Amino acid sequence: MPTHPPGRAALIALDWGTSSLRAYLLDQDGQTLETRRLPWGIMHLPQAVPHEPAARGFELAFEQACGDWLRAAPDLPVIACGMVGSAQGWREAAYLEVPTELPRIATRLTLVERPGATPVHIVPGLIQRHGLANVIRGEETQVYGVLAQQPDLADDVLIGLPGTHSKWVAVRRGRVTHFDTFMTGEVYAALRSHTILGRTMAADAPSDPAAFARGLRVAGSPAGRAGVLSTIFSARALGLAGELAPAAQPDYLSGLLIGHEIAALAELLRHSGGQPRIVLCGDAELCQRYDAALRHYGLDAPALARHATERGLYHLARDAGLVAAAPAQPAKEPS
Amino acid sequence: MPTHPPGRAALIALDWGTSSLRAYLLDQDGQTLETRRLPWGIMHLPQAVPHEPAARGFELAFEQACGDWLRAAPDLPVIACGMVGSAQGWREAAYLEVPTELPRIATRLTLVERPGATPVHIVPGLIQRHGLANVIRGEETQVYGVLAQQPDLADDVLIGLPGTHSKWVAVRRGRVTHFDTFMTGEVYAALRSHTILGRTMAADAPSDPAAFARGLRVAGSPAGRAGVLSTIFSARALGLAGELAPAAQPDYLSGLLIGHEIAALAELLRHSGGQPRIVLCGDAELCQRYDAALRHYGLDAPALARHATERGLYHLARDAGLVAAAPAQPAKEPS
Repeated sequence: MPTHPPGRAALIALDWGTSSLRAYLLDQDGQTLETRRLPWGIMHLPQAVPHEPAARGFELAFEQACGDWLRAAPDLPVIACGMVGSAQGWREAAYLEVPTELPRIATRLTLVERPGATPVHIVPGLIQRHGLANVIRGEETQVYGVLAQQPDLADDVLIGLPGTHSKWVAVRRGRVTHFDTFMTGEVYAALRSHTILGRTMAADAPSDPAAFARGLRVAGSPAGRAGVLSTIFSARALGLAGELAPAAQPDYLSGLLIGHEIAALAELLRHSGGQPRIVLCGDAELCQRYDAALRHYGLDAPALARHATERGLYHLARDAGLVAAAPAQPAKEPS
Repeated sequence: MPTHPPGRAALIALDWGTSSLRAYLLDQDGQTLETRRLPWGIMHLPQAVPHEPAARGFELAFEQACGDWLRAAPDLPVIACGMVGSAQGWREAAYLEVPTELPRIATRLTLVERPGATPVHIVPGLIQRHGLANVIRGEETQVYGVLAQQPDLADDVLIGLPGTHSKWVAVRRGRVTHFDTFMTGEVYAALRSHTILGRTMAADAPSDPAAFARGLRVAGSPAGRAGVLSTIFSARALGLAGELAPAAQPDYLSGLLIGHEIAALAELLRHSGGQPRIVLCGDAELCQRYDAALRHYGLDAPALARHATERGLYHLARDAGLVAAAPAQPAKEPS
């Protein structure tokens, strides 16, 4: 909560993923002064020219995202999270191994030096080497943001971050102990656009909650035992049998996939013996689908977290000493 | 087995699927006299012209497949199976509902009349309305072919037909009682070509049996409980962790997917209480992968069936009265 009226920029925070770049101008208390969304994900940089250093595309995107903010205030610190720190990013940032104490994340920022200009601090990803290898880039920042806003959760919580890849991050006693990845969103898109399932689907079907709920039920029914590689074919077969309209097939498939994801999650929780609180974080419409799926599988209705990325970037920058903590310093405005 | 030397054409048999068309010229005993493979699957017909009747593309493909055979012997009967009988096919053929007696399939051929020319008989597909709806087109003919060659199996057998979609067809006491579909092959192709998993994979990796076996093991390990939507991400994560080379990732992913398919199949068999014999039927290299997967999950090593489609088309044509049964008729050759 602000301790003084917003107005003075104190931080530039970048959420830089595969397909888009979000830029936030924040004040000393983490209040958002301005937000921009650009299409320059790391796989879609502006004016990328073959044989030019890859860094050139990042510089161009960076200039469009916040060049004017930096000209107005050249000393503003810059922090960034997401795929910008991957091997295909601007600079490969470290992975922290889990289990890890949450505060360690703020101590391992990777610096992109920019000669004669403001450097960029990139947040580390997380890597899990126990069990089956797994990685995260970007979601660690959302987890940081959720827990900065609700520190009491850090004792035992499972944070779900649905999206292209949904991540489920377990935090216990302030440590990230484990996480799982489900490629649900990307698999949905690939099935719809690049398999026979798309052929019988209506292209621009409106949302169909009943079809979604039916998919959820099938995933959890005895027929669901055949697994998702099998049940997805029912989107087509039910259509051919005259039991599922083309306009209902997209949300039916969505319900199947999310249903299988949550069924597996419930099974993992059962085996681990844990009953953590659950928090969802992400796009509101998608979180609603996950909320319905969690309830269907008997898991507690989750709390919803908002603005986790900007909150996480702000708190990481503050904990790393890039932004002085509030209260505001004595006024330095020109008289 | 032939009762007379091959030579006299008695049947044209077409295996007409989504992506290709195979044409067989068979003699009265079902011996193959000639085989042709054309790229004219029903989604890739030759010279398809907008606003022309769709049937025109089928006629063109048909002419290329067997026009000369028919000019040499205009009375040859023609039988076809596969997606040519689907709603997007030449003529929509019936679906038979399962459970169904096998011999019924030969009684329900759909006729494509061709004015002034030889008609085409299309084999019905199968539809399953109990449990979750499911359909088959083409595999019913392979099942027919397998059981025509090994009739003793028809008492209790599970026939696996791996491919773009693998089908598992249960036959008991001469009746098709149930079948399952797994979209394993098509999902593999979509994941490899249209998701982030393809980005870290070597494009032309040679076969890697160890990587395949590793995928099988992971699918059946405690980590496999997270389900296929989750374990597939390990193809990438293990790569990023330096634990899986780009050239090993394609076969690792193949092992994961086939492993999850067979794990689910084993679970379904466990729940049904059955222990049928298992027969595999399809591409030899793919059947080898499924053989390894079945053994890994403790299922009996399967017998392999070959030439099931041509055998099935031949026996269906014979049982439908399109081809007289051997022994050969008295010689009619010109003296």
